[in-house]
Amino acid sequence: MRYARVSVDGRAVWGRVAETDVELLSGSPLEGDPEVLGTVPVTEAAWLPPVLPGVFYAVGYNYPRHIAHAGASTPDRPEVGYRANNALTGHRSPIVRPAEVTGRFEAEPELVAVIGRTLRYADLDEARKAVFGWTIGNDVSARTWQHQDRTFWRSKNSDTFKPMGPWIETDVDALAQTTTLRVNGEVRAAFPTGDMVFDPYDHIVEITKHITLHPGDVLWMGAESTCQIEPGDTVDIEISGIGVLSNPVHLEGNHS
Amino acid sequence: MRYARVSVDGRAVWGRVAETDVELLSGSPLEGDPEVLGTVPVTEAAWLPPVLPGVFYAVGYNYPRHIAHAGASTPDRPEVGYRANNALTGHRSPIVRPAEVTGRFEAEPELVAVIGRTLRYADLDEARKAVFGWTIGNDVSARTWQHQDRTFWRSKNSDTFKPMGPWIETDVDALAQTTTLRVNGEVRAAFPTGDMVFDPYDHIVEITKHITLHPGDVLWMGAESTCQIEPGDTVDIEISGIGVLSNPVHLEGNHS
Repeated sequence: MRYARVSVDGRAVWGRVAETDVELLSGSPLEGDPEVLGTVPVTEAAWLPPVLPGVFYAVGYNYPRHIAHAGASTPDRPEVGYRANNALTGHRSPIVRPAEVTGRFEAEPELVAVIGRTLRYADLDEARKAVFGWTIGNDVSARTWQHQDRTFWRSKNSDTFKPMGPWIETDVDALAQTTTLRVNGEVRAAFPTGDMVFDPYDHIVEITKHITLHPGDVLWMGAESTCQIEPGDTVDIEISGIGVLSNPVHLEGNHS
Repeated sequence: MRYARVSVDGRAVWGRVAETDVELLSGSPLEGDPEVLGTVPVTEAAWLPPVLPGVFYAVGYNYPRHIAHAGASTPDRPEVGYRANNALTGHRSPIVRPAEVTGRFEAEPELVAVIGRTLRYADLDEARKAVFGWTIGNDVSARTWQHQDRTFWRSKNSDTFKPMGPWIETDVDALAQTTTLRVNGEVRAAFPTGDMVFDPYDHIVEITKHITLHPGDVLWMGAESTCQIEPGDTVDIEISGIGVLSNPVHLEGNHS
């Protein structure tokens, strides 16, 4: 199944994505078995981030080639950081580059695990069962701010810096797929999605030693490669078996 | 007014705290003007964190004496980090020290601003109007993990490490108050709440240059002093004009 959230008359509505239509649902599939209340054509759907997490986890260095490229050391255990919900935006919505941003402004293509159960002290088997489905994230980063600031607050969490979507795919072997990053249709990176130092289940086991995960929490799994993006570009991230997350890049307007 | 969230038959219910009773409300005061549906005596209230934020902001170094003590440099502009909702717990609920934690395990008494409006590109006057009210936070920290880990995930965001409450006070000049930290009734720290490098409104102006704040977001303002806490202790943080946030400290049980 593919579950999404779409905007209908200004309201966020859960949907199930079928061949040509999005079936609008009475509630969240994370909380029960919602009814179908209507449909909108897929071509007319106004896509929202497919879930608003209670906690938004993000893995940093997790792909061997990314670690080597950065000259970083390979982590000896899973660790996580955080991103912020204000930065989330949906499929086809613009990534807005702030007027102040100069230097490297980059897309990072990431697999996202969506948690479906409340769990603590999970073993690997429980961790596997706790993933409701998979979506795609773009961990947009302004590198100058990333180096200037004490935290990632502006560099990775400015409004629109976290496109997520287009939907949550529940039936895919996510770690056996290929992640492809395209800018204006040109392939800029492609890598095996599952070529991670620690996979999502390893992270869930480690996190839940200390932390309760809840339905709707998301875990972004890091990227192997990144690429520069500019206003006017369109950035597509495809993970085979899940879908394509596509966002245009705009330049922030004048707010003085 | 004092607004709280309490647990009633396992459900989270908003309340307005009066002299002897908590008036149970039909909804969130952040979203309208709820009706009173019933009462519970204040002495029997099961306090929850007074709000579950969409984004949980936290300021680091913000009190001159804390900065001097840490040998850090004074920030030249407001910056924020993040904490995680799983770690929130209410007034009177236990802080659970993980079995693995050794070394310094500390309480940090903090003023918390609760945002009441959606705002972006705010000036100082808009920032002042956007604060719905004030509560109290305890930024419990396991220092060994803080130094070992790449992020604050375990050190500051393990379950129960973020007591918040007891309620949101809407009618107080929060920056003119005194913050007092007591362990088992003994004063361990006391400082002027408003003796900050950058106050909450400075932070809101800076944050909203890049980020949209939403009703229910919280901004923890940092601490001047900290102190060691141990299983068996009771930690009280008082901010005059707001209230007292009190939590016992327990030791994690065996989960193997």
